[in-house]
Formats: sequence, C-alpha cells, structure tokens
Amino acid sequence: METLSVALGERSYPIFIGTDLLSQAHLYNPHIHGKQVCIVTNETIAPIYLERLKSNLSASHISSVILADGEAHKNLTTLNEIFTTLLSEKHNRTTTLIALGGGVVGDMTGFAAACYQRGVNFIQIPTTLLSMVDSSVGGKTGVNHALGKNMIGAFYQPQAVIADISLLKTLPPREISAGLAEVIKYGLISDAEFFVWLEQNIELLIQGNEAALTYAVLRSCQNKADIVAQDEHEGGIRAILNLGHTFGHAIETAQGYGNWLHGEAVAAGMVMATDLSMRRGDISSEELKRIVDLLERANLPTKAPADMTPEQFVDLMGVDKKVLDGRLRLVLLESLGRAIVTSDIDTKLLMETFAACR
Amino acid sequence: METLSVALGERSYPIFIGTDLLSQAHLYNPHIHGKQVCIVTNETIAPIYLERLKSNLSASHISSVILADGEAHKNLTTLNEIFTTLLSEKHNRTTTLIALGGGVVGDMTGFAAACYQRGVNFIQIPTTLLSMVDSSVGGKTGVNHALGKNMIGAFYQPQAVIADISLLKTLPPREISAGLAEVIKYGLISDAEFFVWLEQNIELLIQGNEAALTYAVLRSCQNKADIVAQDEHEGGIRAILNLGHTFGHAIETAQGYGNWLHGEAVAAGMVMATDLSMRRGDISSEELKRIVDLLERANLPTKAPADMTPEQFVDLMGVDKKVLDGRLRLVLLESLGRAIVTSDIDTKLLMETFAACR
Repeated sequence: METLSVALGERSYPIFIGTDLLSQAHLYNPHIHGKQVCIVTNETIAPIYLERLKSNLSASHISSVILADGEAHKNLTTLNEIFTTLLSEKHNRTTTLIALGGGVVGDMTGFAAACYQRGVNFIQIPTTLLSMVDSSVGGKTGVNHALGKNMIGAFYQPQAVIADISLLKTLPPREISAGLAEVIKYGLISDAEFFVWLEQNIELLIQGNEAALTYAVLRSCQNKADIVAQDEHEGGIRAILNLGHTFGHAIETAQGYGNWLHGEAVAAGMVMATDLSMRRGDISSEELKRIVDLLERANLPTKAPADMTPEQFVDLMGVDKKVLDGRLRLVLLESLGRAIVTSDIDTKLLMETFAACR
Repeated sequence: METLSVALGERSYPIFIGTDLLSQAHLYNPHIHGKQVCIVTNETIAPIYLERLKSNLSASHISSVILADGEAHKNLTTLNEIFTTLLSEKHNRTTTLIALGGGVVGDMTGFAAACYQRGVNFIQIPTTLLSMVDSSVGGKTGVNHALGKNMIGAFYQPQAVIADISLLKTLPPREISAGLAEVIKYGLISDAEFFVWLEQNIELLIQGNEAALTYAVLRSCQNKADIVAQDEHEGGIRAILNLGHTFGHAIETAQGYGNWLHGEAVAAGMVMATDLSMRRGDISSEELKRIVDLLERANLPTKAPADMTPEQFVDLMGVDKKVLDGRLRLVLLESLGRAIVTSDIDTKLLMETFAACR
C-alpha cells in the first residue's frame, strides 16, 4: 500500500492507495471520531460493496443511503435525501459520512458533510478510476443546478481518501478508459516523465494490472495534491487541472450529457487544446501525435464528433463575445508536461483548431 | 456612527452601527469587489427599502430576489430560488450578495453565498433588532429541514454588517421587544455593567430612542463578537449564547412555531434558566427578580405558557433520557453577568423550575 498526504495545514489528510483496502478496518476506523457513521452509495455499488464495508466498521450506529445512479440525480433534491436519513436516524455533529461510489456520490456526500449541522467529517472511498484520480482529491464538493453543473457547493476536505484498486475489477472497460483520460492529463500538464511511463505501460492499465493501476493512481494523486496544496480555492494555478475541459464541456453539451462520458469529452478536448498549442508554436506536431496515439491506445476519442461544426463550438463556448472582452481563458500546453492558463487567444488559430479536430 | 470589528484573522470584518446608513454608499461599496450584486430580501421589506438600497449601489449589474416572509420558507426550496436568479442573470464568482432583511433572510443569503460557485462574498443589512444583535454577527448561516431547525448550513462570515438603526422605525413594537430579549441576554451571560445600563434605559429602547438603540446594538455586538472570536465554530464557550434557548425551544415547539416569537420564548427560557441557577445556589432571589422585572418592562413574557406542564417540558427536552446518559447540557448563570455550560443537572431542581415558571 502507498500513502500520500494532501498538505493543507490543519486540513491535511492521507490518501491510501493499494489493493484489498476495503477490508482493512485499521485504515478508516482511526478517521471516524464518534460512534455514528452514515454510508452514502448508489444502487449500482450497494449490492456489490455496501455490506462488506459495513461489516468492517467499528462504529456502533451505522446508517446507509442508497441514491439513484448518475449525474442526473446530482441535485439539491437528492442531497436532501441524505439529510433526511441523517436526521431521522438521529445523527449528531460527531457523525462521519462515508462516500462509497464514483464522482457523483463523492461530490454529494462531501457537500452533505459540509452542510450537515454546519459541518461533519467525511471519508472518500472512490469506486471508479476517474474519481480516484480526480474528484476524491482536492475538496471540491457540490451538486448541479438545472441551469449549470457544479454551481452549488463547497470546498470541503475529507478526513481520508481510500483508493482500493481492487474495486476497479467490477468497473466496465469504457469507464477505465474514461478515468485514464484524467491520468494522461497529469502527464500533459505537470509530469512529462509520467507521460513517458504511460506510453510504456498503457496496455497494462487497460488490462487492469493492479500494480500498474496502483502506480498510475499514486502518481496522478501526487500531481493533483501538489497543485491543490498550492491553490486550494482555485485562485490561480489549480485551473490547469481543467486542461481539455472547456472544449470537452462544449462536446458534452452538444451531445447531451451521458452520451459521451466526461473522460471521453476531456480526451477529445485535450487534443484540441494541444492542437491549438501547436498552432501557437509551443508544441511540435510530433508531440501532438504522441498524445493522440496514447489516447487512442487508451481507447479514447481524439476528435470532436464529426457533426460538430466550428460555429457550434463558437456558440457553446461563447467564443465571439468572450474573445472580444478577453474573458475566454483556456488551459494550453507550453510544452509537453507544462500547462499555462491564458486569455491571450488568437481567434483565427482557434477557428483552425475547431476545423481540424473533428 | 460606531464601527467595531469581529476579529477572525483573515475572515475579520467590520460592523457599522448608526442612523441613516442605508444611504451612505461609502460604507458598502468598498466591500463589493466585482461589478455584480444580488440583493436578497422579502416581500415585507422590499416595498420599503429595496429601491433605496439599489439607488445607492455603484455596481453596474444589480439583481434582486424577493422571498416570501417567514421562518416557514427558510428551506432548500427557497434557497434554490436564489440560485436560480443568480444563474439566470449570469452572476459569476465575483458577485456580492446583500441580505436585506431579518434573521431568515440573513441566514439564507449567507448560506447561498457560502454555496454559490463554492463561495462568493456577502454583506448583511439586518432590518430587525433581533438580527442586528444576533444572527447577523458570527457567521452562522443555513436553512431548516422538515425534521429540524438550522440543520443544514455553514459557518460563513460576511464582508461587512451594516446595522442601520433608522430601519427599526418601521419595525412593529412586539418585534422590538423580541429583539430586546437577546440584548438583555448579553447582560446576563457576559456583561453585568450593561445589565445595569439596561435597567436604567429600557424605556428609551422601547420608545425607539435612536441613541439608546445604537448603544444597545453596539454593546450587544461587542459582546457577541468577543465570544465568537474566541470560538468561531462553537466548540466551547460560544454555547453560552444559547442561554434560555433550550427551554425556549420547548416552548416554541409546544405552541407551534410563529405563535410565540423566538425572542419571547427566549425571554421565558432565560427566566427558567435563572430560576434553576437560583435553586443551585448561584443566583439570589433578588437577582432573579431584577431579571424578571427588566424583561417585563421590555414587554416580554417571563413564564412559560400556563398550559405547559412539567411533563411536557420533560418530553420536549428529552430530559429523562438525556439526564440519565449525561447529554442534557444547559446554559446557566454562575452569577449575574457570567454564564456556564453544564451537564451536571439535578433533575429534582429542574422539575421544580418547570413547576415554578408557568
């Protein structure tokens, strides 16, 4: 097992990464300070892992909430279900919430913990590769509003994150690939050496090799933890974590949420960001090809949908207006392994990228 | 005008107290850091003060939300109305929310500010005496759940509090009295000298004398700010601010919310806490009489409703169970001007207090 720490002063916490961690009570029980625990999970995960987790907890009062699965349920109404269980089962300020699930469960559980009686403790047990390397680290919690994703939330750090690689055995291959998009992202934005490692080991990851997955999750979390420790509330550098996300968001919106997985849209978006970086002269065509090749080997899309026109991107990203008043900020690559955030965007080059990447 | 500071390190903020402050743009404009403002108020306050406030703001993009008036609307559904306005009118992370209203508006606006895009700035402009001396200072924000009051929320501090005493002219006398219950509380828990001042000036306060009200609000906020600065998240001493609240909460529940105002229930509750303190030998019968007299002069109830039996208090406060397992914690007076929090409660004396105070 590997342990790393997210260095946030009094809000610091450990991330445990390894196999068969769910059965290792000594990992999570020290982070539960009262007698009460409430496990929040979803209808997909509950039948597989809920009882196993429960049987390992030493808390005397254990409740659970089983939410409907999917991004569509990440809203205030579902959040209120968590509060209703906590109140009807008399959880007090010493209770600990445990998120057992992917990003949606983790974001909602963390936000419920931030708000319940003005703040109780919580632990993240991510069950997808994407949530292990992305949402479970860094303290962004929240829900969607009908008018915007992740618009209601809090920065709220867990007591611990337990990334049990063994849980990935039950994850569909398409979701492993979607998680790998964010893993590859760390190579692009801050860790060129890791990018090379990924070029050498991508097939092992796709095949579910546990040693390779453990290393990839560890290295990803290290990169994210370093960035978050520098900028907890995203005032500056933390924004580089959004490489590919502005383009990806346009794709997700155009295709309807759920048709493309988030990681898939980010993969195509990262290619677009790299393509634009190449047109600015910061990335070589050879480097672009290496990135595209790696994403393809991870079974990820590397182009926007063929039916998405440049005009549609302009529309969905609000480019016209935003470029004019300087508000369009994009994460681009200064070199392979180093990202920048810039609002100095040449509209002509951007239009070329839109045309080239589909 | 008086200015005092709530000393909370980087979360410190000023409280301005005086007359005709609403028209003094130099007080609030420096605390608005972007171009966007959203004023949250209610249907009672909006017709009187909303336009006046708007006309003084220098922000270029001003929205407003007018909520239904009353505690019954302090819930997630109403909170979502604020988010809907913010999103549909394109407020970004630089927006500032302004709470223009009493405690309900302040608690909801503060919580909306805590959650919108994971946290934006807000300013409190309390319009009731109760909210000036109580909820607008200290950063407790939140909403009710069907199963419990204030169960969902955040500790979140405003950028500034503007207590404009002139706004109290339009407040009904019964609400002035309810606010005075919390003012008198500060005399009891932490400021014996202020208690004497209140004995000498209570009629001026009831009559709406602005100089007297300014002093009473200033001294109350000073007391609260000192206590909050010692214990922002209510781990210890901050609990003394709840003098009379456990008894009062039982009265509010028994009578149905809204029949007794919160301040009225707290007034009767403070007499009960003092009565129990007297039975423990910490307060003299003469001091109890002085407290009862002062509350009566403020037109506040000093007894629980005649139809509330000791059994009902036992039931609503969960006394039996709580005393047995030591969880009943009450704020009592050690002397006039000094409160303690104790779970060392003699059930026999408590039953005597229930019987005596109705």
